[in-house]
Amino acid sequence: MLRAGPASLTDFFSLFDQISSIGSSPNAGVTRLAASAEDGQARQIFARWMIDHGARIATDAIGNQFACFDWAGADAPWVFAGSHLDTQPRGGRYDGTLGVVSASVAASEIQQAVETGQIRPARNLAIVNWTNEEGARFQPSLTGSGVYAGTLSLETALALQDGTGTCLDDALAAIGVVGVTGNVPPHPDTYLEIHVEQGRKLVEAGAHIGVVTGTWAARKITVRWIGRAAHTGPTVMADRLDALLGAARGIAAFEDAMAARYPHLHRSAARLVVEPNSPNVVVNRATVWFELRGLEVEELSLAGEDALLAFATAAAQSGTRLEIVSDALREPAHMNADLAEFVADTARRQGFAPLPVHSVAGHDAVALQNSGIPSALIFIPSVDGIAHHPDEFTEPQDVQAGLTVLAGVLKRLVEGESYAI
Amino acid sequence: MLRAGPASLTDFFSLFDQISSIGSSPNAGVTRLAASAEDGQARQIFARWMIDHGARIATDAIGNQFACFDWAGADAPWVFAGSHLDTQPRGGRYDGTLGVVSASVAASEIQQAVETGQIRPARNLAIVNWTNEEGARFQPSLTGSGVYAGTLSLETALALQDGTGTCLDDALAAIGVVGVTGNVPPHPDTYLEIHVEQGRKLVEAGAHIGVVTGTWAARKITVRWIGRAAHTGPTVMADRLDALLGAARGIAAFEDAMAARYPHLHRSAARLVVEPNSPNVVVNRATVWFELRGLEVEELSLAGEDALLAFATAAAQSGTRLEIVSDALREPAHMNADLAEFVADTARRQGFAPLPVHSVAGHDAVALQNSGIPSALIFIPSVDGIAHHPDEFTEPQDVQAGLTVLAGVLKRLVEGESYAI
Repeated sequence: MLRAGPASLTDFFSLFDQISSIGSSPNAGVTRLAASAEDGQARQIFARWMIDHGARIATDAIGNQFACFDWAGADAPWVFAGSHLDTQPRGGRYDGTLGVVSASVAASEIQQAVETGQIRPARNLAIVNWTNEEGARFQPSLTGSGVYAGTLSLETALALQDGTGTCLDDALAAIGVVGVTGNVPPHPDTYLEIHVEQGRKLVEAGAHIGVVTGTWAARKITVRWIGRAAHTGPTVMADRLDALLGAARGIAAFEDAMAARYPHLHRSAARLVVEPNSPNVVVNRATVWFELRGLEVEELSLAGEDALLAFATAAAQSGTRLEIVSDALREPAHMNADLAEFVADTARRQGFAPLPVHSVAGHDAVALQNSGIPSALIFIPSVDGIAHHPDEFTEPQDVQAGLTVLAGVLKRLVEGESYAI
Repeated sequence: MLRAGPASLTDFFSLFDQISSIGSSPNAGVTRLAASAEDGQARQIFARWMIDHGARIATDAIGNQFACFDWAGADAPWVFAGSHLDTQPRGGRYDGTLGVVSASVAASEIQQAVETGQIRPARNLAIVNWTNEEGARFQPSLTGSGVYAGTLSLETALALQDGTGTCLDDALAAIGVVGVTGNVPPHPDTYLEIHVEQGRKLVEAGAHIGVVTGTWAARKITVRWIGRAAHTGPTVMADRLDALLGAARGIAAFEDAMAARYPHLHRSAARLVVEPNSPNVVVNRATVWFELRGLEVEELSLAGEDALLAFATAAAQSGTRLEIVSDALREPAHMNADLAEFVADTARRQGFAPLPVHSVAGHDAVALQNSGIPSALIFIPSVDGIAHHPDEFTEPQDVQAGLTVLAGVLKRLVEGESYAI
């Protein structure tokens, strides 16, 4: 069945190293924020490489890039594979980029097999680079896949503002990404994504391939403490309403309450905007982005209520006023079971022992699955589970394993196999 | 002795309203950060007004503006009066601007008296606008007066960077302030500054004029918690080293320790820089600017040690590493007693009952006094003690009182009176 040879690690690193160098600094990882100049460069390298390997490029209105192979004709179904090329500030090289490059290399090998008649395609294939998966510069994350999947409106997405007030629409225009270009393919019947695990489950189990069966739920609460600006010098202490003190008490109380009552939930406060943020002015507004992640929605509901109570208590203690800016639940996703088994079956035929795993983080594949497009998410190991950090690393043998499985699954799908049981 | 009439409130508001409108927004006060485009406009309005009223303008290498009246000849001593035109973000209209405009109006009246022969000057006079008094955009504060007084080197000051990495040198150049222009006068034998109190002592005492006898000391400690960037989703809690959690515990513990042991000290944490500040990345570095203010250096020393202990405990609790970025003591200042009595005597002769007060905040007059230039700081009331806030306000009758006293003192000094007892 696997008539083409194993996908080439040499090809992989020739493209991966080119893209990873964009936004890279010594000891500072990669900073390639969505719709930045660096993102623009990475998009061009990706597009150039795909065109050189036989694809045509289309871009939709939110800037998602589709490298299309129209092998099976206009009426044939599509399969998509991809991930994202944006990164966190000082992020790692593998997160996202590994998925786009793996899919690109697998596609180029299938293209060769199609050209030489080894494969007779029954599905078309597009390799996709989704816009702003990370949500580092623009919140929420999963912007491009969310718009594609229909869970986020295009107008809302284009109007998202970064910390300096630049909207996504203008940021995309600044790197030459304006409106729809080319013939964007219709929704696929299958989406595949390979990603580094960003955890330790695979390493601890000694597995090289993970097949995601579902994701954790997440509750994301953004809270603002509102005080009153005043001079930090002469203003008597009794007159001060200090929003940063409110936020500090809120962050500490949140961690203490969750650690005591819900120790297995993952939790964080990782973004904080302070106004006016001058050393001599009592803080007027402090806005904090909190996250809670766990398997059970009911538990997140209880924990969220405890968190809101902790925030309100912190406000009362500091004489500040609390405003809930947003409070959103991301339901747990259940990946398509038949497709997951199809991926696992392919991996087993190739000699791997795939491990069923959950994903804690959101991924583009989850956004697509939740909108009704059968999607699979394949994990490969992350050394020490390090993620969103310059030290993020995956062993070449694991990159090879992922590439082999992804290419195998894509070939079967392009040849028209059905995975519905 | 006071041969010219009382300084005109109409003249005052004609200039004050012009300058106060620059950087002003409805309900958002005035944002006229040092060396911003708005600061550039305010500087031009000030210079134009002074030239129209008979002064020549000189600028020194850190951008301090001197509006000079060379009445008494090259060998005569100088008296300076002034304050600053920069503001906090969303600051008030009176802070700083009141002092520059009061001195300008007083100078213009003396100029008329000189022209008509009512005054025979024995001292020259310069009205000064000091660069970056506020320290909102560039830290430390009192930059221009510090360089002039010799307590801050010009090289250090020009290299100060704002939050976006722009240095003061480049920011000044961007508004056309480059190098020394004109003939900068030599150090004066006396400096006078009038400022809104930014506290409640005058209002509570029913006084219209305060004469500052000395200032509180301040200890300013900038501390950084260093953790490790990681994905806020899959990273297991035990692996997280969260710098924002360290900072939050530090801010809360600082307030608790100070409130319990040193309740009369004024204290704050008002600036916080979080890196990378993405909702999905555990915070790697959190830097906090703390302040402690009080009358006694010894108490600040003890309180500072308690604060450092609280910071270290917060670091230990969050598994983060503590770095003391800076730890500076501003000694309490003792204003020149003879000059203060000369100011109080002038005020009493004008029918006021001046109140001796301390200043909690630093002011340019303090920087000059500490460098050996005899300096006086005159306060007028702030309604409700509100400062660094859009609602900052001083009643017109109190503006008139300050203007009258300042003009009276300046006239006596220009006429050559000695205040040394």
